Parts: sequence; C-alpha cells; structure tokens
Amino acid sequence: MSVWVNGRPRTTLDYRDRGLQYGDGLFETMRVLQGRIRLLEYHLARLSEGCKRLRIDTPGAAKLRRELERIAAGRNNAVLKLIVTRGSGPRGYLASGRERTTRITALHALPASIIGGAAAVRVRLCSTPMSVNAHLAGLKTLNRLDSVLARAEWRNARLWEGLMSDPEGNWVCGTMSNLFLRHGARLATPLLDRCGVTGVMRRWVLENAAGVGLHVEQRRIRCKDLVSAEEIFMSNALVGIRSISAIERPAAATVRIMSTQAARRLRARLDAL
Amino acid sequence: MSVWVNGRPRTTLDYRDRGLQYGDGLFETMRVLQGRIRLLEYHLARLSEGCKRLRIDTPGAAKLRRELERIAAGRNNAVLKLIVTRGSGPRGYLASGRERTTRITALHALPASIIGGAAAVRVRLCSTPMSVNAHLAGLKTLNRLDSVLARAEWRNARLWEGLMSDPEGNWVCGTMSNLFLRHGARLATPLLDRCGVTGVMRRWVLENAAGVGLHVEQRRIRCKDLVSAEEIFMSNALVGIRSISAIERPAAATVRIMSTQAARRLRARLDAL
Repeated sequence: MSVWVNGRPRTTLDYRDRGLQYGDGLFETMRVLQGRIRLLEYHLARLSEGCKRLRIDTPGAAKLRRELERIAAGRNNAVLKLIVTRGSGPRGYLASGRERTTRITALHALPASIIGGAAAVRVRLCSTPMSVNAHLAGLKTLNRLDSVLARAEWRNARLWEGLMSDPEGNWVCGTMSNLFLRHGARLATPLLDRCGVTGVMRRWVLENAAGVGLHVEQRRIRCKDLVSAEEIFMSNALVGIRSISAIERPAAATVRIMSTQAARRLRARLDAL
Repeated sequence: MSVWVNGRPRTTLDYRDRGLQYGDGLFETMRVLQGRIRLLEYHLARLSEGCKRLRIDTPGAAKLRRELERIAAGRNNAVLKLIVTRGSGPRGYLASGRERTTRITALHALPASIIGGAAAVRVRLCSTPMSVNAHLAGLKTLNRLDSVLARAEWRNARLWEGLMSDPEGNWVCGTMSNLFLRHGARLATPLLDRCGVTGVMRRWVLENAAGVGLHVEQRRIRCKDLVSAEEIFMSNALVGIRSISAIERPAAATVRIMSTQAARRLRARLDAL
C-alpha cells in the first residue's frame, strides 16, 4: 500500500484536520484497471461538484488528474482512494477561511472477491436507516456513520450487500452501491434528493441504459417494487454492475430474482470501455 | 495547546483511522474551571453511551477520568476536547473487529467571548437542516457536516448562534447548543429522538429545572412556539446557559425576547457547583 498526503509520501495527518474533527470532506474510491482509472472524469466531476457544494477549495483539476494517473500507471486491478478535506483550522464549526485543502491518495490491493466476480449475489435488508439531509444528499462526504452501522449488521460472507431505506421506508441504496430494478424495458433507480450517494457507476448506467434498449427513470422505490421486479442489480465504481439473485428479508419470504439480462448487457458495454 | 494521542504527546494520526475515513467516532468538548472539569461525570456517561450504541470499545472509564483530571489540574478557563474513534483498520465500511480505539485529548485556550459573557445574545434561523437518523440521534458523533454547513451561513459576529430545524420544520437546536423555551413556569426543549445532540448542559438543565420552580418537558418546537415564548435560552458545555434577546428571521420580523429570569436562576445554580 502506498499513501501520499498533498502529493508527498506520508501516512499521518494533523489531528486538527477538519476531516477528522467533523467529517468535513469528501472522498472517491476508484478502480484501477490496466494502468488506467475507470470513469476518472466522472470521479473528478463528482468531487468538483462536492467541493463546490461544501465550499471546499477544489484541488486544481489538471494537477489532480496528473497525480492520479501517475499513481495508476503500470498497475492493474487496484483501488485508488482519494480523500479531500477542508484542511486544518482552529477549534469550532466555523472555518477560518484560511484552511488549506488536505488531499490524501492511497493505493490499495483490490479485494479478491471483486476480480472476475460476475455471479449473481444475495443481499439483505438493513434496519439502520439512511441519514436524511437534502443539503448533503448525493455527496460522498466523510460523514458515513449510517453506512458503517448498516454494514455492521451482518458478518455472513454469503451476503454481498445490504439495502438501506430512508425513515419513510423508501429503499435508497446499498451500504456501498446503488440500486437498479427492471420491469420489462423499464429500469428504475431511487431518487437521491434527500439522502444517498450519487455513484459514478450509477451515472454511467443512467447514461448508457438507452444504449441497451432500456428506458430509465429515477423515483421512490417501495418494498412492493423489490418484490415485483424481474431483475435487480447494484452498481459500484470498483465492482461495476452486480446482479442480485435474492433479497433476504426479516420475518418475510426471501425475494428471488431470476433475470440477469440487463446487467449482462450493461456489463458487456462497460467491459468494452 | 497540548495534544495527546492514546496518552502520549503527539499531534498526528494514522490516515487509516476510521475517525477520518468515515467519521466513525465520538467527541466531548469540556470546560475546565479552576483545575476541574465541569460536569465531567455527564461527559463520561454520554461518551460511554455513545460507544455502546456505535459498538466502539469504551476507553476504561477510571483510566480516562484520571487522564482528563491530570490534564485539567492547575488550569483555569480552558477547553478540553476528547475524541474517541474506532481506530485504524482495513479499507471498507466493515470493521475487522481488531481495531483498537484511538483517544485524542487536546487542551485549548477558552475563547475570550466565553469568559464572563453573560449578556443576552442575538441568534438567527439557519436554512441548513439537521441530518435525520434515529439510530444516531442524540450522539455527539464525528459526523458533523450539518453543523458545519449551518455555521457557514453567517459571519456577522453580532450573531452568537444559529437555530437549526429538521426537514419537517421543527426547531431542534443550535449549531453548537441546545434550545430551551419558557412560557410561565413551563420550560420546553426539543425532543432529540430523530436528530440533534443531547448536550451535557441540556441534561443538567433537565435535572435542575424543578429546583428553580420550573416544570420541564421535551416536545416538538414549531415557529409559533419561538414567537410566543416569554424567554428563550441556549445551553452548551463551555458557555453554560446563555439568554437569547432576539431571533432574526429571513423575510419576517425579528422575534424579541424580554425575559432572562429562568436563565439567571439556573446560571446562579450552575455557578455554585
């Protein structure tokens, strides 16, 4: 594993960094494939949008792209994680305005479960709800305790992911992935206007669905939609597109899903990138 | 300023610490007065409750108390901040279970505005909503972006605090303080079952209201309650109890509050601790 803080090899951080003190920052988790970062432009666009909304100085895009590309060069199947925080400042929620952005880049090995894993997987329903805040919805901020608590609900390795709902019972996403349901030629994915992270792979699916003959819409997803779906898949920047074979529910019958048709077509398109 | 990480003088932290990666931790901000920490037992109790709910190993209470008391000894009017995180672990939301708690203690100067500041202050209404999550409600976690964004809404030093509401328009707390309203002998403070932090000074007021002749209840607070209150005050571990003289509202008349009676009686009681 290799780590850089503001471009220099280092593995420690000032304890006053607002990323630690308040989760005042953002991150991107990127897939390195044959020396290149998949969907790099989407990652940079989301980071830039997040910095704008949180009013964090965006690291210069051209310089950041060069740094990331240099780290990825010559590597295959790795995870490149980028954290950007508002930087170190005085105690208290009010930033002084003189903070200088902290940028951490870390290269990790890709978990073996991801390489070549294309078989459909089982998921469960989590009881931990998503944190709702329309002013933070969509952003991949460092405030991730809802996902941490949801992911702590199971240790059974047969379960690949857990679905999370908002307090009103709308299913929003997985702890680390976005959700898609297919009925015929119609693909649906949850609206992320109140909570959830707008995944880069979700964006890619939204933009590529028409290319594989699907009409896609963003809307609220209820339990009955999960039960009636012909096909369900999840998207994630590292994994790509993962078909779901079953949803385990507490005190209710497991939902079995037979089709993997749309996910296979989208995966073929993604692999051809 | 003096800083210790796990009891040793140090100002840096492993970048893999889950406190940074996900805000996976808690904090306490304590007032040091004449060599002692005010409401120390309340701080330790809230921390312990938070660790339990997040399933973070609690630092040994007796050892932690001794460490904090040793730092406070001989100091007057200082801020002692304690951060406890789940510690460093592998990438991903799932904790390995082998993480070792990180404990950061930092002694800061008390802002001049706090020492002896007893005059009633002006506050405003924030447009940034509170993050709603019943599983995290009440805890002082490191996920504090809602307070950061709310506090960034104003720089006018005449405004001491901003009030925040939940998405349904219930007023819940300030960015760094809890809210109390008085009508006659009835004191009300917002229910914190969906969002907000259960401040240690709020707990002290709840326990001491009867002692100054007030009946206190926790309930939803609407805008009309702010407008009709005879008295409004905020509580905060550093500041104690602060009377509010006016609430500035966007596109509506400023709410003026004349009474500071209950706050004065509570403050006298607190000063006698």
